[in-house]
Amino acid sequence: MKYDVVIVGGGPAGLVAAFTTKRFYKDKKILVVKKTEKETVPCGIPYIFHTLSGVENDYMGIEERFKSAGIDLLIDEVVDGNTDEKKLLTKTGKEIFYEKLIIATGSTPNVPNIPGVDLEGVFTVPKDANYLKMLYEKIKDSKNVVIIGGGFIGVEVADELKKSGKNVTLVEIMDSLLPVSFDPDFGEIARKEIEAENLKVLTGRKVTEIYGSKRVEGVRLDNAETILADAVILATGYRPNSDLARKLGLKVTEYGFIETDEYMRTSKPDVFAAGDCVQHRDFLTGKPSRLMLASAAVFDARIAASNLYGLKVIRTNKGSLNAYSTVIGSKAFGSVGITERVAKEEGFEIVVGRAEAPDRHPGKFEDTTKLIVKLIFSEDSKILLGAQVCGGKSVGEIVNILSLGMQKGITANDLFTMQIGTHPLLTSAPTVYPLAKAAEMVL
Amino acid sequence: MKYDVVIVGGGPAGLVAAFTTKRFYKDKKILVVKKTEKETVPCGIPYIFHTLSGVENDYMGIEERFKSAGIDLLIDEVVDGNTDEKKLLTKTGKEIFYEKLIIATGSTPNVPNIPGVDLEGVFTVPKDANYLKMLYEKIKDSKNVVIIGGGFIGVEVADELKKSGKNVTLVEIMDSLLPVSFDPDFGEIARKEIEAENLKVLTGRKVTEIYGSKRVEGVRLDNAETILADAVILATGYRPNSDLARKLGLKVTEYGFIETDEYMRTSKPDVFAAGDCVQHRDFLTGKPSRLMLASAAVFDARIAASNLYGLKVIRTNKGSLNAYSTVIGSKAFGSVGITERVAKEEGFEIVVGRAEAPDRHPGKFEDTTKLIVKLIFSEDSKILLGAQVCGGKSVGEIVNILSLGMQKGITANDLFTMQIGTHPLLTSAPTVYPLAKAAEMVL
Repeated sequence: MKYDVVIVGGGPAGLVAAFTTKRFYKDKKILVVKKTEKETVPCGIPYIFHTLSGVENDYMGIEERFKSAGIDLLIDEVVDGNTDEKKLLTKTGKEIFYEKLIIATGSTPNVPNIPGVDLEGVFTVPKDANYLKMLYEKIKDSKNVVIIGGGFIGVEVADELKKSGKNVTLVEIMDSLLPVSFDPDFGEIARKEIEAENLKVLTGRKVTEIYGSKRVEGVRLDNAETILADAVILATGYRPNSDLARKLGLKVTEYGFIETDEYMRTSKPDVFAAGDCVQHRDFLTGKPSRLMLASAAVFDARIAASNLYGLKVIRTNKGSLNAYSTVIGSKAFGSVGITERVAKEEGFEIVVGRAEAPDRHPGKFEDTTKLIVKLIFSEDSKILLGAQVCGGKSVGEIVNILSLGMQKGITANDLFTMQIGTHPLLTSAPTVYPLAKAAEMVL
Repeated sequence: MKYDVVIVGGGPAGLVAAFTTKRFYKDKKILVVKKTEKETVPCGIPYIFHTLSGVENDYMGIEERFKSAGIDLLIDEVVDGNTDEKKLLTKTGKEIFYEKLIIATGSTPNVPNIPGVDLEGVFTVPKDANYLKMLYEKIKDSKNVVIIGGGFIGVEVADELKKSGKNVTLVEIMDSLLPVSFDPDFGEIARKEIEAENLKVLTGRKVTEIYGSKRVEGVRLDNAETILADAVILATGYRPNSDLARKLGLKVTEYGFIETDEYMRTSKPDVFAAGDCVQHRDFLTGKPSRLMLASAAVFDARIAASNLYGLKVIRTNKGSLNAYSTVIGSKAFGSVGITERVAKEEGFEIVVGRAEAPDRHPGKFEDTTKLIVKLIFSEDSKILLGAQVCGGKSVGEIVNILSLGMQKGITANDLFTMQIGTHPLLTSAPTVYPLAKAAEMVL
């Protein structure tokens, strides 16, 4: 078969690549090739265990939308191809010719090198709907769950499994939770939230062995302590799916990330890449970043798809900001840019502003939560380098104020004099609005 | 008595002026003069009628904070003064000398020119805590309330009084609710929300008379219809308090607003002004704006106070954006910049992008609300001129993303390629994030 645009992968990057292509190039014939029937909302996966009660409630439901948009869909796996002939080959033996190709093959869980990872009852958290269905059923009967890795997936899955009634222990090798996006002060707030639910948290601890005869029976830590477990979940990061990219002869980094330019063009003509399989670079340092977020994947996909036949949409920011938010216990957490720790490691000279205020005003409304803001600025220029926020649900969009701000190079002066809208039921009071107050501290 | 900095007024502008002065000029002796003992949170006033159950729960509680910050407070009214001698005179006969003066005298409800406005049972909604206490007590026993004016105060007070169990009729002279900040499409959503509560809304209707012998008995409309009422609330805007400014000889506009420069300096040396009493200008047209918002007042106060003894904090945006949010029925509404109607009146050539999506993802979470976004761009440059948003509580901070964006001159390209953080429990999905989707529509 022959298509104008072929997209390999049906996750957020593939999905957005397809719809964006359709919007910018109405007359092009578009095909999406993906491996499984149903696609999950990736960031919703931790919530299948309790809040959503099952994988079915986390389906994206894109299959219908492809149909009505006139985008063809093929459930199959692209296993090989040739960029000179502009040809792909699928597992079931189909040949597909393309004019423009977007690779959005995503990522797969890392399996750490610990003895016992292949025992029965040891799971990862992939995006694959069929695996997740199996995991959801199998974990139902377990009582004692150990989660290895205190990053976002580990913390969110731990929180959910605890809420579903299990004994949960979370083991993180670094000294605080969520160490990539938050400094220890915010990691400690997260720990307190999660410990308040009687979830056991061990930081600065390494799992040296997962033991058991056939099934997992427990894990052993680097201090020789053991924890009984009838299930273990590995939440130790993801690696890019780059087998296809390698077969096509695209430039790939030593860790398997596809190299692209600013406009998501790979080393081969007419081949673009987007999402977790791409090598991103840090917004501030330009260094390779291991960021894997659906929001970043979608950004890649918009850039790639709109620019397939000529650069229409200009990329005005040159790297990844790692804008992120999550919910832990009763609090929401958000982070963007670099942490204080990374700033120091990278040699940035910084000043830090902090502020807190109720996220409603007056603070007598029922759903009032204390909002805590930490802003990291360069010392001389007072340009915003990073931010961490903790509070109620408005944190999810407060992070996006700061993210847009960083993309526009805002300074403490800008935040201090920022015109905002406020409302008693929706935001902090204008008099104590914490973004302005934290900026004021460094002026 | 003699002070370095004297601030007249204890509302949001006065309060923030005092604390900002203290932070930037630690050693200065500061005095705040205000008329009443207790200060209300102005935007919280509509909520005293039901959600907050009384004026007491809407106090700012600044009196203690002044004390602990070392800021002096005088409960009195400044009635006259002389800027050559740098002297103020209070109602109780005190003389106060200042080095720098900030006038933050606020605003007072407009009383429209309708027969019967002075009948018993006809009220305004001022910021004065004592009046509000009286109003709260008196309105308790009324059954049928007519509210004149469908702007923010009118709509919010109507919503609250309805929730407290009264029959409420809201009469608005324009063709839709909230006509200053929202186009009729959003006004209609607001109307539906409010009508779902069995609150009666009449738009395009004028009240020609408030009738009754001594107490109010009803109102008569321009179509000769009458509505029975035992209480009428006038929510027909506010006018600046500029008596003192006039006595000091400051330049004041024909509508009574104090004229200032970019740094809130009035026409007299060492006299600054901030808040509702100041003539603001529109961000896009530069025309006089009648905006009166606590958030804008606070912005003025930060600029004025930090720059009292030399321009330290640079004002990088040159006019008022009217960033605003509110809650009506079960939905939150936000607006910033100009509406489509105003854009057309002012001659802007525009394109409009629209998008909607659930504000959680997947949309199966309990508190999911549909988020509707309308973005108004200049046709050629695709610069953002205005935005209206309706949805769940995250609207309060989404408006601030757009407000910061407008202050930085963002375009549709910027919003389409904006890096954002998303989370199932906090935001829309990255794949359908409505700010990006509405921007995509115009590219």
